[in-house]
Amino acid sequence: MTEKPKLRVGLVGAGFMGRCHANAFRSVSGLFDLPLDPVAEMLADVTDDVAVHNAAALGFNRSTGDWRNLCADPTIDLVAVTAPNALHEPIVMAALKAGKHVYCEKPLSTTLESAQRMTAAAQAAGIVTMVGFNFLRNPMIRLARELVEAGEIGEVVSFRGRHAENYMADPDVPHSFRTDPDGGGALADIGSHIISMARYLLGPISHVTGQSRTIHKTRPISAGTTERAPVLVDDATFALIEFETGAVGTIEANWAASGRTMDLSWEITGTRGALVFSQERMNELLICKGPGGGHTSGFTKIEAGPSHPPYANFCPAAGHHLGFNDLKVIEVAQLIDAIAGKQNPGPDFQEALEVQKIVSRIALDCQSPKTRAL
Amino acid sequence: MTEKPKLRVGLVGAGFMGRCHANAFRSVSGLFDLPLDPVAEMLADVTDDVAVHNAAALGFNRSTGDWRNLCADPTIDLVAVTAPNALHEPIVMAALKAGKHVYCEKPLSTTLESAQRMTAAAQAAGIVTMVGFNFLRNPMIRLARELVEAGEIGEVVSFRGRHAENYMADPDVPHSFRTDPDGGGALADIGSHIISMARYLLGPISHVTGQSRTIHKTRPISAGTTERAPVLVDDATFALIEFETGAVGTIEANWAASGRTMDLSWEITGTRGALVFSQERMNELLICKGPGGGHTSGFTKIEAGPSHPPYANFCPAAGHHLGFNDLKVIEVAQLIDAIAGKQNPGPDFQEALEVQKIVSRIALDCQSPKTRAL
Amino acid sequence: MTEKPKLRVGLVGAGFMGRCHANAFRSVSGLFDLPLDPVAEMLADVTDDVAVHNAAALGFNRSTGDWRNLCADPTIDLVAVTAPNALHEPIVMAALKAGKHVYCEKPLSTTLESAQRMTAAAQAAGIVTMVGFNFLRNPMIRLARELVEAGEIGEVVSFRGRHAENYMADPDVPHSFRTDPDGGGALADIGSHIISMARYLLGPISHVTGQSRTIHKTRPISAGTTERAPVLVDDATFALIEFETGAVGTIEANWAASGRTMDLSWEITGTRGALVFSQERMNELLICKGPGGGHTSGFTKIEAGPSHPPYANFCPAAGHHLGFNDLKVIEVAQLIDAIAGKQNPGPDFQEALEVQKIVSRIALDCQSPKTRAL
Amino acid sequence: MTEKPKLRVGLVGAGFMGRCHANAFRSVSGLFDLPLDPVAEMLADVTDDVAVHNAAALGFNRSTGDWRNLCADPTIDLVAVTAPNALHEPIVMAALKAGKHVYCEKPLSTTLESAQRMTAAAQAAGIVTMVGFNFLRNPMIRLARELVEAGEIGEVVSFRGRHAENYMADPDVPHSFRTDPDGGGALADIGSHIISMARYLLGPISHVTGQSRTIHKTRPISAGTTERAPVLVDDATFALIEFETGAVGTIEANWAASGRTMDLSWEITGTRGALVFSQERMNELLICKGPGGGHTSGFTKIEAGPSHPPYANFCPAAGHHLGFNDLKVIEVAQLIDAIAGKQNPGPDFQEALEVQKIVSRIALDCQSPKTRAL
Repeated sequence: MTEKPKLRVGLVGAGFMGRCHANAFRSVSGLFDLPLDPVAEMLADVTDDVAVHNAAALGFNRSTGDWRNLCADPTIDLVAVTAPNALHEPIVMAALKAGKHVYCEKPLSTTLESAQRMTAAAQAAGIVTMVGFNFLRNPMIRLARELVEAGEIGEVVSFRGRHAENYMADPDVPHSFRTDPDGGGALADIGSHIISMARYLLGPISHVTGQSRTIHKTRPISAGTTERAPVLVDDATFALIEFETGAVGTIEANWAASGRTMDLSWEITGTRGALVFSQERMNELLICKGPGGGHTSGFTKIEAGPSHPPYANFCPAAGHHLGFNDLKVIEVAQLIDAIAGKQNPGPDFQEALEVQKIVSRIALDCQSPKTRAL
Repeated sequence: MTEKPKLRVGLVGAGFMGRCHANAFRSVSGLFDLPLDPVAEMLADVTDDVAVHNAAALGFNRSTGDWRNLCADPTIDLVAVTAPNALHEPIVMAALKAGKHVYCEKPLSTTLESAQRMTAAAQAAGIVTMVGFNFLRNPMIRLARELVEAGEIGEVVSFRGRHAENYMADPDVPHSFRTDPDGGGALADIGSHIISMARYLLGPISHVTGQSRTIHKTRPISAGTTERAPVLVDDATFALIEFETGAVGTIEANWAASGRTMDLSWEITGTRGALVFSQERMNELLICKGPGGGHTSGFTKIEAGPSHPPYANFCPAAGHHLGFNDLKVIEVAQLIDAIAGKQNPGPDFQEALEVQKIVSRIALDCQSPKTRAL
Repeated sequence: MTEKPKLRVGLVGAGFMGRCHANAFRSVSGLFDLPLDPVAEMLADVTDDVAVHNAAALGFNRSTGDWRNLCADPTIDLVAVTAPNALHEPIVMAALKAGKHVYCEKPLSTTLESAQRMTAAAQAAGIVTMVGFNFLRNPMIRLARELVEAGEIGEVVSFRGRHAENYMADPDVPHSFRTDPDGGGALADIGSHIISMARYLLGPISHVTGQSRTIHKTRPISAGTTERAPVLVDDATFALIEFETGAVGTIEANWAASGRTMDLSWEITGTRGALVFSQERMNELLICKGPGGGHTSGFTKIEAGPSHPPYANFCPAAGHHLGFNDLKVIEVAQLIDAIAGKQNPGPDFQEALEVQKIVSRIALDCQSPKTRAL
Repeated sequence: MTEKPKLRVGLVGAGFMGRCHANAFRSVSGLFDLPLDPVAEMLADVTDDVAVHNAAALGFNRSTGDWRNLCADPTIDLVAVTAPNALHEPIVMAALKAGKHVYCEKPLSTTLESAQRMTAAAQAAGIVTMVGFNFLRNPMIRLARELVEAGEIGEVVSFRGRHAENYMADPDVPHSFRTDPDGGGALADIGSHIISMARYLLGPISHVTGQSRTIHKTRPISAGTTERAPVLVDDATFALIEFETGAVGTIEANWAASGRTMDLSWEITGTRGALVFSQERMNELLICKGPGGGHTSGFTKIEAGPSHPPYANFCPAAGHHLGFNDLKVIEVAQLIDAIAGKQNPGPDFQEALEVQKIVSRIALDCQSPKTRAL
């Protein structure tokens, strides 16, 4: 048995998403039959010491306190970027300059201009890019798109989407990169998920208008202090959207939604059926074929199983549930396939840029809302 | 035991809502201890024969083929109007002229101007009016308002409402009063329910903008024919709304929503909790106090029971479920109390007019949508 | 239009169930096209004064403080018995002696012997009997039986049933007829509902074995006192059951089930599908055709609508929900039809006796449980 | 940074569970801070060739076509057994003889006597054993046990448990080890899961009685043939159980349950509350404190999050969902901790033997059911 070629991975950052990436690269080879064998080669973190510690914890061969070293290292094939959003551009640019493939967490960058520069550079570099919109990797989401494309619910006429969580619901959650006026806010942070999913499922969005609110006007300037500073980003944004197909609907981004831990959800209504999904129950998809409401018709609850690729890579039996980290494993498997020359399912930088354009357009619109007084 | 004074009811129409009214007047005295005893005195229907037949079926003492007779009849105290929407104004005007109390089905009328005339006439007449927004009578909706008013979820910051049904999902459902350009469309027909509920729960709506779609561009001109004519009203409308309090959100009206038989639903998010409701499960209300998502916190499912007035009038034990017709009984009980001099909880004509203003404003806005191209 | 013949109803008792009967007789004529027109003729209650008061409240023409008068009254056609269980036998016997039709609340009586005497007397009298197992009247339950009979889920192999409520969960709920050793206990009170439903859906039960517990060993002897007396009946009973068809399963009766207000629920598994129901969501029925768990298969949620008789008698549109009191209206409609000569769908006394035999057999078995030590 | 000591793992079998073990050993170090570093040292499979192939796929250093070699290999510290049930005893005995720690899939063995021999041998060997009842590792199950132990629902009075799946619902699923009269059947295969969970949550079961059915009387003798042979094991078993505490209830094992892919579910009722769980929604736990059914009381849906150890090892944010494979990672982390000297949370062989005793006792009882004819 000949060994597979290696794919040497350099990971920047070891926080929530960094750990998640590390886990995915560690697990993926045993679950997917891939053309390349990923190697956890180097970890970059904020200091040398932290990097040494986290590299050991996450199983990386080497470490560095400076991501520039990682990007420049000739052994590295792929740079995975999970650093704070504001650092995405310099890291990505350095990686692209060195000819690396780039796997970047969402959002691509903090501003539209930055994202545009990164996308242009990536296209010029001719490498493979992937952006971590992990929720798209869910077999149930893939199934939904296949059902839509197959016309199982007729022509799509409306979309009602939302990403609501509660992690900023407490007014004493302090300021952070999330509330940085440059790139922050609920719309950018999680609205981007429902926008990317809307595009994945139904294609380009052509028109928008929005309205936003800052629910908690001030927050502590940092953890452990009582000093507060104004919040300049949205806690909740609502928008009307229109797709190029003519389908219309609404989206909501809300990070102060009490009671909601993961309501990334939507309902797609077609002329001959409907689909309903919530990430709260990510292993389920509801489908109604036809109008429903009849003698034995209505929504059928589909439970994830081996007939929904790539579920079977994780488990041969239905009902055993994929979890969040499994979505990242699927993402990494798709990335490795793309690097090996298969079709890149994306989202690549170009697609992430399209999402960011919509975020920016809605945000701009919210500054001069179009609602009319009664 | 002295007999209660009678309230002699004249009912116009014996269709879906007419039967529902008749049932409510027949049942209410045994369930509520009311100051007046309603008597099913006269039924008006489209012809004398039909009226005789339906009066017998619904237990009315007398009948007429002409609603003018009913409105003018000196024994009638209350005129209940369940005729087609286009007839609401003439019937109500005749009843008001004769000094009757008026109980009118929603929508109040087909146009804003008509509704304004009716409201002005009612105020001049000094009688009691009630409009049949029956979904507001649900003890769970009353509970929700009480919880909001008591500050149980903090300050309300957003509302996400919808009324989606599937009764027009089939493109072969023929034209009817529902698709009449004068007063028809999903927004007017069921959007009015979610608007009235939003106002009931959270107060006045100050700003709106909307977007609508006609999903099925043509429909048969009548049942049993293949000849089709264009549809000039909306099948689905989405709107951004803003309340006077500053709370924002979205509403949707959709009568072609496959899979949905009664998704009159909403989520109210507050600064310290949330409430979730759907008429699909009308005997349940979800509440989360605090942000949720903690060790043992999250949404609690409240099931309707005798601690939620006026549930106990129907049943002394929790979990036994009210149904749709029970909501109409509650409505009628509130109406009779109001006629006897108690506080009118409404919606009266004035409130129905406010709802209609919002419907009209959104509809107007949909003619020149405010969404912007990307 | 000729008037229908009258059916003069004498009602004994005006508590929870008495009010429910009264409401049903008042409402039924407007909702169903029946051969007889029920008249609320006479109410019997514990004293003359109470009877006068309740007759007025519930719309009965006459009243009496002695049910013997009612049973003997020559104008009465039908005696409806909602008195305490211990009085069922004497009242029913008096009514039968006078040749009345009898409509009796469940359980038929407090002991098996009493129920047998009543059933024999009813058969001898040749009148129509009906026992108030109202949950069987739900259109969703009727649909379930039709689906089973039509073989939609193959051959039935198992049944998992339960009736759990919380009304005795509090150890300070005082003694009452419910805890009377003669006829009381959770198994008799609500176990009878799940047993009657099991028989309605799947036919005769041939074998049982059970195990029961008294959760709260003492209760206050009456409301408002601290003096407590031992509880001699079951709070919860579990049983293995076998049907004549060979299908097997379990039933549970539990009136101290925290969190449950109306979990009268079951799952029927067949060789080619399954059905799931809970009275907690009484307007829904889940069906899976085939094994489920496939690409787009699983449980479909059927929502009650006009294609599920007799839902359409209450409302012409799906999704509008029947409530508990509507079930009693259906029961009364079936009773009136039976009195007019149509097929009696039951449960009549004979069927109620069969249910009681099963209750008694399980209760006896619980006295010497058949479980074996490990 | 000093390297951790290695724990060299020998895995026997690379099917469903073998792959699952391999994934867990590969992932665990990056997710948990463990005292030992597991190394995928050797894989044993049915032939040398298959073993070579699967070792490469699953990342094992070495391979063998004979598990005897693996058990005897001096470098191996831990033998993980995922071979067919009938091979558990010889493999485990060989591993114990060589002084290895043993991690064995459930059921421990095919017969009670075999399990007893294995348990005695393990105790004599003084090594660490673990049996793969992975569903116990769910943070929601751990939370449930903590809530029960803390008295949050009062004294436990009843348990209603079930493990129902549909993988044998199709009568054309052929014979396999699952239908081997020696150790097969639904009760042994998945009934053991609900029994182990019942014991984990509520302690020892003292009494049982059962009733079972073979739903499909014959099955194809192997895949691809039409020749059928009788099925001699149960497809569905129902049992009454009693705990040492006096709590009572039922359990069901059913592998032919149409519509159910993973209904490993239970309801625990206490004197002051209740808990409800289903593996179908494994990231949720319902709790009702107090009787419920009141003004704002009822079941609260708890969603898995970082306050439920060890969820935070996988993700720092609530609502992100663990999946089935994550449960195995937790199991492996607990095993490694135990090998390093920490308290073994089990289930060890002794506990698995206790589960098997209950399975055997119920199975024996089903041969002469204790139900009585009516």
